[in-house]
Amino acid sequence: MRLDYRQADFETRFAAFLTTKREVSEDVETDVRAIIKEVRARGDEALHEFSLRFDGLDTRATGLAVRSEEIDAAFSATDPDVIAALQLAHDRISSHHARQMPRDDRYTDALGVELGSRWTAIEAVGLYVPGGTASYPSSVLMNAVPAKVAGVERIVMVVPARDGALNPVVLAAAKIAGVTEIYRIGGAQAIAALAYGTQTIKPVAKIMGPGNAWVAAAKRQVFGTVGIDMIAGPSEVLVMADPDNNPDWIAADLLAQSEHDIGAQSILMTTDEAFGDAVVEAVERQLSTLSRADTARKSWADFGAVILVPDWDTSIPLADRIAAEHLEIATLNAEELAGRIRNAGAIFIGAHTPEVIGDYVGGSNHVLPTARSARFSSGLSVLDYVKRTSVLKLGPEQLQSLGSAAITLARAEGLDAHARSVSIRMNRREGS
Amino acid sequence: MRLDYRQADFETRFAAFLTTKREVSEDVETDVRAIIKEVRARGDEALHEFSLRFDGLDTRATGLAVRSEEIDAAFSATDPDVIAALQLAHDRISSHHARQMPRDDRYTDALGVELGSRWTAIEAVGLYVPGGTASYPSSVLMNAVPAKVAGVERIVMVVPARDGALNPVVLAAAKIAGVTEIYRIGGAQAIAALAYGTQTIKPVAKIMGPGNAWVAAAKRQVFGTVGIDMIAGPSEVLVMADPDNNPDWIAADLLAQSEHDIGAQSILMTTDEAFGDAVVEAVERQLSTLSRADTARKSWADFGAVILVPDWDTSIPLADRIAAEHLEIATLNAEELAGRIRNAGAIFIGAHTPEVIGDYVGGSNHVLPTARSARFSSGLSVLDYVKRTSVLKLGPEQLQSLGSAAITLARAEGLDAHARSVSIRMNRREGS
Repeated sequence: MRLDYRQADFETRFAAFLTTKREVSEDVETDVRAIIKEVRARGDEALHEFSLRFDGLDTRATGLAVRSEEIDAAFSATDPDVIAALQLAHDRISSHHARQMPRDDRYTDALGVELGSRWTAIEAVGLYVPGGTASYPSSVLMNAVPAKVAGVERIVMVVPARDGALNPVVLAAAKIAGVTEIYRIGGAQAIAALAYGTQTIKPVAKIMGPGNAWVAAAKRQVFGTVGIDMIAGPSEVLVMADPDNNPDWIAADLLAQSEHDIGAQSILMTTDEAFGDAVVEAVERQLSTLSRADTARKSWADFGAVILVPDWDTSIPLADRIAAEHLEIATLNAEELAGRIRNAGAIFIGAHTPEVIGDYVGGSNHVLPTARSARFSSGLSVLDYVKRTSVLKLGPEQLQSLGSAAITLARAEGLDAHARSVSIRMNRREGS
Repeated sequence: MRLDYRQADFETRFAAFLTTKREVSEDVETDVRAIIKEVRARGDEALHEFSLRFDGLDTRATGLAVRSEEIDAAFSATDPDVIAALQLAHDRISSHHARQMPRDDRYTDALGVELGSRWTAIEAVGLYVPGGTASYPSSVLMNAVPAKVAGVERIVMVVPARDGALNPVVLAAAKIAGVTEIYRIGGAQAIAALAYGTQTIKPVAKIMGPGNAWVAAAKRQVFGTVGIDMIAGPSEVLVMADPDNNPDWIAADLLAQSEHDIGAQSILMTTDEAFGDAVVEAVERQLSTLSRADTARKSWADFGAVILVPDWDTSIPLADRIAAEHLEIATLNAEELAGRIRNAGAIFIGAHTPEVIGDYVGGSNHVLPTARSARFSSGLSVLDYVKRTSVLKLGPEQLQSLGSAAITLARAEGLDAHARSVSIRMNRREGS
């Protein structure tokens, strides 16, 4: 798809482009509701039955919990270069996220009123890890490391083991990240177990991590009983590149998104039509050599786009409307343009910062707001694993200073008992 | 309801107490879906029809927007004492929330990699204000002031005007808080208008504020297209009080919650049975004189509780499991106990800090996590009106340092295009 800002119908086509739906949301609400009901009612027994039915695994025989020997064996079986890369990623993610730790605030104002904000870690979180090809060790690090940094005591991972098989690199990543419990279950039943608990699995307070339609529906249904992270959609990248770039580099970046999912979206924004053509040709050339060529080709054909803009000033409001999960800026004034962007999950500055570095070893989190939600939400951070309690403390004098206004507003809202709870304390000073 | 820690069945009864459902969630999904569809398809026309049908108001005649003359008139018609109290509340909320503004972070690590977190305000937010008796001016301040502090440009308020009537104090509070637009619409149609926009109303990026079952269902349905705040349930308070307290003060605090809603919950936790009895008697005495006695009596009868504990050490884990929206601690060692509590929306320390002060003029926010969600979420703050963009910047040297590890992990995940987007840049240095 090509969009040219200079064409008369650009605004209409761009507006339509923004609202293109990239995933078919299967309606599994009812099935999921039934599965959750079963797990709540029958606990482990239900988990055993569902694992046998959906994963072809007899968890009665294997046990639900993945044993430490299994985890150590997986770790030993993993290529040392991969272990070293995971360790490097872990250390960089850990040190970057440590800077996100919010500070408590306690102060006394001019009236002598004490106010405060106190942060505490969530006691226990669940981390869903998909099975099969979407089972990414890097995502284990991105979800578990911030929890560790935040001080979460229980980090409970669930991962489906189709026919008993678990990805050893995922287990190795869990060990490196400090995951405290791992269970070989998946789907809506795993989400239900995390939310409500079973004989074997103690409930958690919040559930993170991506999953298929069943997992997403289950997360929505248990929300309220536990917290959940965002419901992530297919990934996307917007690359702003000027003609000075090597078309092959930019094409590789576009394909790195496209290979994720047929619903993924790769967008090139450029000021030079010939350069845009060169990138499109490079995409075609590189496609043929990819192991996931089918996925990448479909994603690029269905949702890929080249947007031609007259100048970079014009690109800013368009980029803010796209509100891309990933924004690469490979232009001479990249730093200056980045400073003017308002809506983006993450910005990658300069031609030597491919988005892929952020997927693995940059140190920032790769769990980012998709489908234009960067307009109102942020990527995963330590803040998702802590919560704030506000603190208020008045003495008799402060109550005298503020009491009358509180009573006035309570009466204006027709809340007598509210007014009395203050007035009863203002008329007399005794009492502890 | 009375719970005594020393009794054999305490754990069973306490566990049941924790899971008591306090609201009947009406199933309005289908009606709401239809309303949203209409507003998306027909915009203002649909709003006019729904306002006529549900609010008995001809918005074709009045216009959807509340005019500045109407707002100024409401302001002038409001009792000067109320205006002064609103102004005091506004100033205290504003100065407290200003301390919550997160700071940008940009740094260069040992390898020369530049990382950063940049915070920006959400461009436009919608604030839903219920009609009728639940229409609280204080809630307008609590939702709008943090938006103003965060730097949100458009703060769009919607409020249903049953038979054309608007609460003048709500309009006065909106003026004081700096709300930029007000529309006389409510229900699911107002949420749809905020999320998708109409000819008159430009869409917002996030929707805040409480509402009835239709509003809550509409917020859930538009979530993803826009952000939403928490779905708030009925209010609750846990008061930890020792026998040194005046039973009448504590009774007043319990009733201040109970008068809100028949689903509200007031819990007294004490170490002294006789004191508990005295508070219960005081509640009965005070009930008779309340204008909202019926609501308070039903809430107290259905969900009120007195929990007897042998000592305050015992109370801490129980309070953390209750994870109360509001926690009042009126004991001699209140400060010390407060420091040991992990799960609470807000803590009010000492006998001269009734929770009601926090509802109006304390300065902290009164929008807090209900129904035990303080285990995993926080009260409303400036953070709900901003979002974070992470920034990453590498030069050729940094790409050389980190590239191999990224390629190793990409290959381990079977993502060729990911690997190529890095390797293609490592083999040659030219390009911008």
